[in-house]
Amino acid sequence: MNTRFGIIGFGFIGHIHEAMITNSLDGGTVSAICDNVPKKMDDAVTPDVKKYTQAEDLVKDPNVDVVIIATPNHLHREMVHLAAQAHKDIICEKPAAMTTAEFDEMMAEVEACGVQFTVHQQRRYDRGFRLIKHVYDEGLVGKPYTIQSKLYGYNGNMHDWHVYKKYGGGMMFDWGVHLIDQILWMIKAPVVSVYADIRNVINEEVDDYFKVLFRFENGVQAEIELGTYFLKDDKNWYTQHWFIGGDQATAYCDGFMPDSGVLTTTTQLLTSPKDNNGMEKTGPTRSFIVPEDGILKSERISAPQTEYLDYYKNYLQARAGQCDFLVKKEEVRRVLKLMELARQSAEKGCSISVK
Amino acid sequence: MNTRFGIIGFGFIGHIHEAMITNSLDGGTVSAICDNVPKKMDDAVTPDVKKYTQAEDLVKDPNVDVVIIATPNHLHREMVHLAAQAHKDIICEKPAAMTTAEFDEMMAEVEACGVQFTVHQQRRYDRGFRLIKHVYDEGLVGKPYTIQSKLYGYNGNMHDWHVYKKYGGGMMFDWGVHLIDQILWMIKAPVVSVYADIRNVINEEVDDYFKVLFRFENGVQAEIELGTYFLKDDKNWYTQHWFIGGDQATAYCDGFMPDSGVLTTTTQLLTSPKDNNGMEKTGPTRSFIVPEDGILKSERISAPQTEYLDYYKNYLQARAGQCDFLVKKEEVRRVLKLMELARQSAEKGCSISVK
Repeated sequence: MNTRFGIIGFGFIGHIHEAMITNSLDGGTVSAICDNVPKKMDDAVTPDVKKYTQAEDLVKDPNVDVVIIATPNHLHREMVHLAAQAHKDIICEKPAAMTTAEFDEMMAEVEACGVQFTVHQQRRYDRGFRLIKHVYDEGLVGKPYTIQSKLYGYNGNMHDWHVYKKYGGGMMFDWGVHLIDQILWMIKAPVVSVYADIRNVINEEVDDYFKVLFRFENGVQAEIELGTYFLKDDKNWYTQHWFIGGDQATAYCDGFMPDSGVLTTTTQLLTSPKDNNGMEKTGPTRSFIVPEDGILKSERISAPQTEYLDYYKNYLQARAGQCDFLVKKEEVRRVLKLMELARQSAEKGCSISVK
Repeated sequence: MNTRFGIIGFGFIGHIHEAMITNSLDGGTVSAICDNVPKKMDDAVTPDVKKYTQAEDLVKDPNVDVVIIATPNHLHREMVHLAAQAHKDIICEKPAAMTTAEFDEMMAEVEACGVQFTVHQQRRYDRGFRLIKHVYDEGLVGKPYTIQSKLYGYNGNMHDWHVYKKYGGGMMFDWGVHLIDQILWMIKAPVVSVYADIRNVINEEVDDYFKVLFRFENGVQAEIELGTYFLKDDKNWYTQHWFIGGDQATAYCDGFMPDSGVLTTTTQLLTSPKDNNGMEKTGPTRSFIVPEDGILKSERISAPQTEYLDYYKNYLQARAGQCDFLVKKEEVRRVLKLMELARQSAEKGCSISVK
């Protein structure tokens, strides 16, 4: 059985959907694409793909089984409406909606029309994230107290419509939704409070820096920091950095798709260092000195060999009723809700309790 | 003119006071030391220093002009009382008091007795801190949005009485007071809110991890994180790390006493990278890719050549009326107050607004 996808919006991510499905996916093909700027579709890689300039036309195409919505964020609501009314199943780009209220409307319509709906949170397949999730799921650091997800860029730049507020631009919508989704998919416990700082550091209209802290009922504090203009000289700086600290060990990994991460423990837990060898450089402290050789035991742990194609593979299997969709509506709603609370926290300058 | 110091409490920091004054300070000598465990005083370096086992006796010694209080924290109140009633000037170890209420009592007594009082916040002379303070004071990063001060250790250990709550142990009292003092001395603007997470990760009685965020009225968000069991493999990991991000540049430095730090800017602010060279390793993103060579401009900046002896030099000059004491009572109180609010925030699990 072959599933035929139609892609609405043929910008950066629309191109990626098309290329991955056409070049790599067994059991799926791209039958149609759509963009209101026709020349954006000139470099489509799918032979004989049908090209539309009106979304209304694509959704009615009988050769389209599933609509992938890859427009700017502010249009997701309308595109979901068109696809649902045309009785097409839907994969929507993230963030699915601009607000949870909008999302609830969309879900009501999707359910009324009896179509399947999921969101393209493909970064659940990032290997760095999966490695930390493995550490968390298996309790490899003991009881975790902090989980940190950080992402740094060097020029403050956002692309295309992402620099405009009215189109749903800004880094919280673009990346926050991924980083929050990763954390919430990993930690199933309820969030009890949210504290956030969200800024337009160098962009006029939209946020380009944020820090969000989630306190979970199970005691974990998760922290997400994204800076588009947050400079260091380390060549590994400009990517994602994961850190998980527990009462028995620590694990970290750098990069979205690393081959491995590192789990580190110490052989001298709660024992005093031999002598005050740090005095000269650290001033009067016995706690914060350089460890002697051999005290830290580090082990490389392999990252799961996930890839983004897995997202579509799951989709096809789930659509065939063989498993659940990776990304569930209630998970999408939870991310949107907590993103809203983060914005509230930043605006009010205080933490927000989650009922 | 020579100032004669008497030191009460001859543990780790008492020894350091004695050695530094005796070995290096012009215009000051140690005339007496006191500890209730006599053998702790066996390795005193000052020739013919008078040794006491009762603080009541040391404060009455006519050869003592200034009492340095270097006992466990819970005894500071009583020692200040003894010294003030004996009309001796006082240098108290940090934290001066266990609570602001206790501090207010101490200050009332100190003022009633007409003695001078200051606190040994000598880490205001840490070169790494001074370098970041220079960057902040001179506006070298443009308008700063985040200032981060982080300190990591490898074995969770605290020393001597610091592992007991009743003696005023724990890392917030031991190190939090320094890290908060540095931030508050640098950023003069009022703090508008405090958010904190404080934990006993592996210690039974006392905190050994904390994260404290201060939001300042001038827009800066300052963040302090200390982990005594927060492991990575980088040999520079186990020390203090400063980071200051602004809208024109970033600066960072590692270590308490570094010779220099780094100021980094980019030549491609808000411009798009040439092409999507990061796709393979980073997935679909154009924002978080490795910068091309030459895009980042980094400059080493020298750290001010401060040293801890400067603390005593300032003290002698201030005592002679030539300048102000580096550490003022109202500054000490502000640190204690904000440390209390941080504890409240952590206990309640929410941010605390500061009136």
